[in-house]
Amino acid sequence: MKIFGIDPGSQRTGYGCVETDGFRHRLVLCGAITSSAQTPFADRLLTIHTRLAGLLRQLGPDCVAIENLFFATNVKSALRLGHARGVAILAAVEWGVPIFEYSPAEIKRAVVGYGRAEKHQVQLMVKSILGLPDVPSPHDAADALAVAICHLHSRLPAGLVAPPPAARRKAATSWRGYRARTS
Amino acid sequence: MKIFGIDPGSQRTGYGCVETDGFRHRLVLCGAITSSAQTPFADRLLTIHTRLAGLLRQLGPDCVAIENLFFATNVKSALRLGHARGVAILAAVEWGVPIFEYSPAEIKRAVVGYGRAEKHQVQLMVKSILGLPDVPSPHDAADALAVAICHLHSRLPAGLVAPPPAARRKAATSWRGYRARTS
Repeated sequence: MKIFGIDPGSQRTGYGCVETDGFRHRLVLCGAITSSAQTPFADRLLTIHTRLAGLLRQLGPDCVAIENLFFATNVKSALRLGHARGVAILAAVEWGVPIFEYSPAEIKRAVVGYGRAEKHQVQLMVKSILGLPDVPSPHDAADALAVAICHLHSRLPAGLVAPPPAARRKAATSWRGYRARTS
Repeated sequence: MKIFGIDPGSQRTGYGCVETDGFRHRLVLCGAITSSAQTPFADRLLTIHTRLAGLLRQLGPDCVAIENLFFATNVKSALRLGHARGVAILAAVEWGVPIFEYSPAEIKRAVVGYGRAEKHQVQLMVKSILGLPDVPSPHDAADALAVAICHLHSRLPAGLVAPPPAARRKAATSWRGYRARTS
């Protein structure tokens, strides 16, 4: 089963594809679609849609998971985010696979086990669950992978998807280390 | 010169195409793309994009004019509107013609001559400028035609685009009549 996660944004749209055999999850591909601030907004939307459509064709996922937002700093930023999310959903619905939406709290709860976890905790857990040497970069890619992992943890029988306990413990240690370094 | 106006909305997206020889404007086609409230949101976005792309192919306009919004009732409705506007802009940019954005106040000023005009005044003026027997229905179609007319009035030399004085007078009379009947 292959899940394609999207973390939409008008300046940077993260994407991440995860494959699972029901026990272990494997990173297939991740990255971010960026546009310079000078690019006209309409062209940015075209880039997001074209790149996502190409990735879906290339990777052939079984479903798409996308972050669902009901809040934004203000109405203007909500409108801009809505545009990016609209063309991302369009690419997914054109590809013809089921689309699942998860709120930021659901993603945090599914990945870290705590709905109010901080962003870097989610990213470290993504690294740990996928057995990566580093946190995926850029951060938008890690966030998109978290959406895909959230879908796996939400839809598969619980026993099949939890990461190995060792990985969880290691991630917990890393958070403490990370926080110590930045504080 | 043919202009395609769009009044985007998540439930109803109005469209209207106007042709001009520089003196007189003629209605080519107008209508609204509607979806039932039961239709999944992703499918609604697909319908808006597919229908608009088909209309642009069919009518072959020289440019697209779209209403620009920087406000909404709340962040949630701004997000939903942003989705619809995003896929509408995508259809226009894929068609490859210039896209122009106008705020509601600019549209009112260009069509009625007053930035705070009421919605029905704009609709009656659209009827008058295009020499139609009735206000175009549904109202979203009339609003989309107003965006197209706004572009004509904004981009062509002023002397070439003002509607004939008789039409303006007739429209002004209609407003008074309309307001008297509804008060």
